[in-house]
Amino acid sequence: MRLSLSTWPQVEAYLARATGVIVPIGSTEQHGPNGLVGTDAICPEHLAWSAGERAGILVAPTLSIGVAQHHLGFPGSLTLRPTTLIAVLEDVVASLARHGFRDLYFLNGHGGNVATVQAAFAQIHGRYSLAGTASPLRLRLANWYLGRRVQALSRELFGDREGSHATPSEISLTWHAHPDRAQPMAFDPEVAPTGAIADAADYRARFPDGRIGSAPGLASVAAGARLHEAGVEDLLEDYAAFLAG
Amino acid sequence: MRLSLSTWPQVEAYLARATGVIVPIGSTEQHGPNGLVGTDAICPEHLAWSAGERAGILVAPTLSIGVAQHHLGFPGSLTLRPTTLIAVLEDVVASLARHGFRDLYFLNGHGGNVATVQAAFAQIHGRYSLAGTASPLRLRLANWYLGRRVQALSRELFGDREGSHATPSEISLTWHAHPDRAQPMAFDPEVAPTGAIADAADYRARFPDGRIGSAPGLASVAAGARLHEAGVEDLLEDYAAFLAG
Amino acid sequence: MRLSLSTWPQVEAYLARATGVIVPIGSTEQHGPNGLVGTDAICPEHLAWSAGERAGILVAPTLSIGVAQHHLGFPGSLTLRPTTLIAVLEDVVASLARHGFRDLYFLNGHGGNVATVQAAFAQIHGRYSLAGTASPLRLRLANWYLGRRVQALSRELFGDREGSHATPSEISLTWHAHPDRAQPMAFDPEVAPTGAIADAADYRARFPDGRIGSAPGLASVAAGARLHEAGVEDLLEDYAAFLAG
Amino acid sequence: MRLSLSTWPQVEAYLARATGVIVPIGSTEQHGPNGLVGTDAICPEHLAWSAGERAGILVAPTLSIGVAQHHLGFPGSLTLRPTTLIAVLEDVVASLARHGFRDLYFLNGHGGNVATVQAAFAQIHGRYSLAGTASPLRLRLANWYLGRRVQALSRELFGDREGSHATPSEISLTWHAHPDRAQPMAFDPEVAPTGAIADAADYRARFPDGRIGSAPGLASVAAGARLHEAGVEDLLEDYAAFLAG
Amino acid sequence: MRLSLSTWPQVEAYLARATGVIVPIGSTEQHGPNGLVGTDAICPEHLAWSAGERAGILVAPTLSIGVAQHHLGFPGSLTLRPTTLIAVLEDVVASLARHGFRDLYFLNGHGGNVATVQAAFAQIHGRYSLAGTASPLRLRLANWYLGRRVQALSRELFGDREGSHATPSEISLTWHAHPDRAQPMAFDPEVAPTGAIADAADYRARFPDGRIGSAPGLASVAAGARLHEAGVEDLLEDYAAFLAG
Amino acid sequence: MRLSLSTWPQVEAYLARATGVIVPIGSTEQHGPNGLVGTDAICPEHLAWSAGERAGILVAPTLSIGVAQHHLGFPGSLTLRPTTLIAVLEDVVASLARHGFRDLYFLNGHGGNVATVQAAFAQIHGRYSLAGTASPLRLRLANWYLGRRVQALSRELFGDREGSHATPSEISLTWHAHPDRAQPMAFDPEVAPTGAIADAADYRARFPDGRIGSAPGLASVAAGARLHEAGVEDLLEDYAAFLAG
Repeated sequence: MRLSLSTWPQVEAYLARATGVIVPIGSTEQHGPNGLVGTDAICPEHLAWSAGERAGILVAPTLSIGVAQHHLGFPGSLTLRPTTLIAVLEDVVASLARHGFRDLYFLNGHGGNVATVQAAFAQIHGRYSLAGTASPLRLRLANWYLGRRVQALSRELFGDREGSHATPSEISLTWHAHPDRAQPMAFDPEVAPTGAIADAADYRARFPDGRIGSAPGLASVAAGARLHEAGVEDLLEDYAAFLAG
Repeated sequence: MRLSLSTWPQVEAYLARATGVIVPIGSTEQHGPNGLVGTDAICPEHLAWSAGERAGILVAPTLSIGVAQHHLGFPGSLTLRPTTLIAVLEDVVASLARHGFRDLYFLNGHGGNVATVQAAFAQIHGRYSLAGTASPLRLRLANWYLGRRVQALSRELFGDREGSHATPSEISLTWHAHPDRAQPMAFDPEVAPTGAIADAADYRARFPDGRIGSAPGLASVAAGARLHEAGVEDLLEDYAAFLAG
Repeated sequence: MRLSLSTWPQVEAYLARATGVIVPIGSTEQHGPNGLVGTDAICPEHLAWSAGERAGILVAPTLSIGVAQHHLGFPGSLTLRPTTLIAVLEDVVASLARHGFRDLYFLNGHGGNVATVQAAFAQIHGRYSLAGTASPLRLRLANWYLGRRVQALSRELFGDREGSHATPSEISLTWHAHPDRAQPMAFDPEVAPTGAIADAADYRARFPDGRIGSAPGLASVAAGARLHEAGVEDLLEDYAAFLAG
Repeated sequence: MRLSLSTWPQVEAYLARATGVIVPIGSTEQHGPNGLVGTDAICPEHLAWSAGERAGILVAPTLSIGVAQHHLGFPGSLTLRPTTLIAVLEDVVASLARHGFRDLYFLNGHGGNVATVQAAFAQIHGRYSLAGTASPLRLRLANWYLGRRVQALSRELFGDREGSHATPSEISLTWHAHPDRAQPMAFDPEVAPTGAIADAADYRARFPDGRIGSAPGLASVAAGARLHEAGVEDLLEDYAAFLAG
Repeated sequence: MRLSLSTWPQVEAYLARATGVIVPIGSTEQHGPNGLVGTDAICPEHLAWSAGERAGILVAPTLSIGVAQHHLGFPGSLTLRPTTLIAVLEDVVASLARHGFRDLYFLNGHGGNVATVQAAFAQIHGRYSLAGTASPLRLRLANWYLGRRVQALSRELFGDREGSHATPSEISLTWHAHPDRAQPMAFDPEVAPTGAIADAADYRARFPDGRIGSAPGLASVAAGARLHEAGVEDLLEDYAAFLAG
Repeated sequence: MRLSLSTWPQVEAYLARATGVIVPIGSTEQHGPNGLVGTDAICPEHLAWSAGERAGILVAPTLSIGVAQHHLGFPGSLTLRPTTLIAVLEDVVASLARHGFRDLYFLNGHGGNVATVQAAFAQIHGRYSLAGTASPLRLRLANWYLGRRVQALSRELFGDREGSHATPSEISLTWHAHPDRAQPMAFDPEVAPTGAIADAADYRARFPDGRIGSAPGLASVAAGARLHEAGVEDLLEDYAAFLAG
């Protein structure tokens, strides 16, 4: 059940029976020569929409631009400053809380967002803590690529050629969502170098085609289909555990 | 050509021949009993994707949450504070400028965003003006519902029952994008009351079902198809005029 | 009744019978070769003081610096960043609200302020909307130059040579307020070019003497006197309508 | 020479021979039973206009709202948050610097502004210091009521009944500027209590009629005339010393 | 070599041979019934001072207040909002960069700081990335309690009774630094409960004496001495690796 | 009684009998050729710890980085922007207030902090004033170097060679706290020049070795011991007066 495709009376009816919502959050940034710029937003959105459909969970609009300053050396990458993303999250959470949502589950697709989202959670809870009142909100950040089934499947499919950016897993999953965008490609070297992340100039110098440690030449729509199923199951399980408290 | 569905080499190739980009911007807010919460984001996105496809124009991810504090009395509405949206726009524009985009065309679907987007433009240009350097950027805000063809067609179809919020035009257009979401409905009164906008409590008191001055009972997928064509033509014409300077 | 020239017991007495106040808001920016830098602040202040005197309405101090980044190519122009003006308006409104003022009428003299003032209104109302309480405030932005009588008189006096910046109307009105500053002057070309506004460098390139579409050579103290009377009547009528709800 | 009453070519001509400007800064706040709410803005403005006229110094628009949170217990008092005033000062200084002004002399009328203005100066200079470049700006804050001649005259006229808020000196000076606003009044007690300042509730409890340590019953237009002369001379002397470096 | 206890000529001499600096960062928050409120600041400071002494590394002043909103239910806990800490880190880094420091090593003592510090790093690097220039800075966040030797020793000494807040390891280390503050104590239950962290009210309800999963009854000065040695060695090794690139 | 070296039950016990706390606040900045970079933090911390010990007053962690942009021309100096320090003070005060502290006494060691701390006090009190509620807090800023006994002793010891930055008094006091850091030194000229402060480049040009008006060659551990005693007595006296109201 997508919020964007619902009417307010439908949301009102949903709130009469539930206080939880999934908010996909991603990034718009380069994902190597054959990965989509929207990969990190498409993945959590794709899983959240499927899970929401299957289990009748409301899914908020995807926050599709994240903290990706280190990718700005590659055309098409967009970033928010961390303080901007904190402000966005404060507003989105306050809006949802206004309507009675209490259990906010952020499904994330981008490692670079994790720190800022957790900082935002502390900022949000901190208002209550400083005021000496109890926060009515429960906030959870989950990364789809760290789900139990997804991790197992990813290891099975790609082993240590998964890498950490522009991975065959995430690229496969986007191709499952958008099969017409699948761009099988041979890479040289097959597996990209690894290393730490700093600013955009440093990133481009270390990782000249954008990949980190990955072999996206292994990506396929078929793998994407399996990852999709694994991801949806991970999400439904973890969301249920979250609601159960 | 959607940025999210492109690879960075494709964006690089695009930038070799063009410096323009369309950024759809909308809102997530109630649109009356049978209008989708995502209406104001869906409309500009739908038009931008079609126009981008037709003419090879790059379309950035939709900024789907806007300034909608006055709708918070209705479940599902989300808002950014104006200062938050200004920060978001500063970051998105700075990211695009970093890559060499020069002509940024924001296609807007929500009247409540106009003031804040224009304030953001002044904030962005002002950095250059205060520094005493020329801004390399050209920024334009266009509202799809004010296009020449769209206005004419809207008048033809709905006359003075168009209204100003949850209009049959915008609802028809979303139904063209998502026909399975079409919810024909009879309204009482057929045409909603009109008036000024302040805060959320005041809004809900004045406009109890969320509509302002409109008769969304007139919406139809067929009307949406015609509005879509008119809107795409308006957009392509205005975008070309913008690029021409 | 000017707030600056009142004592607090006088304001207390005023509040016992009224909850409305007029806040003139303008700009400090070039107004062409013979227009005063303070034009956009002088005009609403002049009208507000006269109307306040005539009808016993309290007039707050003029906010004389606005959003004018595009004029910074001309010596003497000052600007606030839009986010700064929003903060100023938040504070001024909060201060007035603290005393029991409820109906705040901003009389504006500068088109470049409109977007930011409206964004500030959304920011202010939004605090209440997000908190789920009703805003006690009514906020209105009116532009003196768009008043019914002023527009009619302006058309009668200057027709299509009125233009949009450094207009003969506004310059005449400032000369009525400060007759010793009247600088009749012949212009070449008589009517300035028109066009869109971006940053300061672009503005100076397009509009080399600062005017946009106007013929301030037509300005006169006599015209100013008539515009003053029209403007005061427009203001009193619109303010009464605002109070009436 | 008032900036508001000049044209941009006049400012351009001024900048060809000078880089200094006086910026009056005050407050809008209660000044006891017979003092004007605008006292702290009127005083520096009155002196700056006279000095500017006498010596051909450019005077910027008065910043008439300052940091006056402690006066909010009295109707009509307005405040900016200190962070807001810092932002305003950053923008005004940046605007002036843009045009080539280098020596910015702030003439202040309100003790409560001093800390924030000095903090703003540190914020402004700090940008250059952190960037490792030399600041082109010279910034000075002067309080008219601390001028040598003014202090001597004040002591002569009112001795220890001058006090520190709603003083007979400042009230006399405003009456010299606005003789029609003179409200001679007998006070009981003649001299108000003294003490420290915290928030608004505390202020009103300690100083029930708004005065601190003062006897404004002694104020007169005649005293104002003498204080005006003393203040203008102080200002011209100090401004010249400032320019001389 | 502590920055606070150096003169500027000594720092200048240091910069002639090195560009690295250690910045201890901690928190001021409850650490259970017998743990010091300053534990998270004392630990990294203690290790950094020892390592700095041993190897001639400059150590900046400890940032002793961190993000600890969840501890505010216990007297004495202090917090910064995440956005405040980001601003502090921006300023400290900019100051150090101004002098030519290039390799900034933050030694952290508080898990709750990690997200915000990493967000700050993205904010700082992002300025360069958005400007299209290379960042001259290398930034590293290391947590002393995750060092290889410390972890091994901690497991050896306390096994699974180490827990995650108010651990016997950190308490032992503070007692090594301040032996007169050692407060051996028996706990009931010996090992505290575990769980997730949200706001302060929730924290106090779940963890009534402040501990999470730990058995600080096991803490001792002797253990602290061994942890100190392990921590210093970890730090020197990791710092050398950081400098080596 | 140092907060950092207390447990939360000890703070709880303290709050049962007291609502006051001392917060040392200083700066990290050059103090001439033989003064410690940490001088302005060490001095108030040293006095506060001694006074706290003597009289059982709680002492919060030292805020050791202040507003010192003008010292950035000398290696090792650190600064916060004034707006950053205001945010820090808002958070620290809010945290202390949350626990029931009501009387917050800031003992300052750096003249450059005074304006910003006072601005922060207005910002903090202003929240209550704007909300129309009474502030529960009492805030005081005291500068140790302006204490009655300290001033008298300083005059006795150093007369007019005390100066205003890198003074023999403050350097002596730091040497009393850290006798191993005493660096007696002969200066040429013995007494440094004096003048006003602007940005860092200007400062270094005017005051080439960092001192202003002082003769730190006169500093000694013995003088520091006497100043320490005077400072502690000043502090205890003033703190008691503050509590007494």
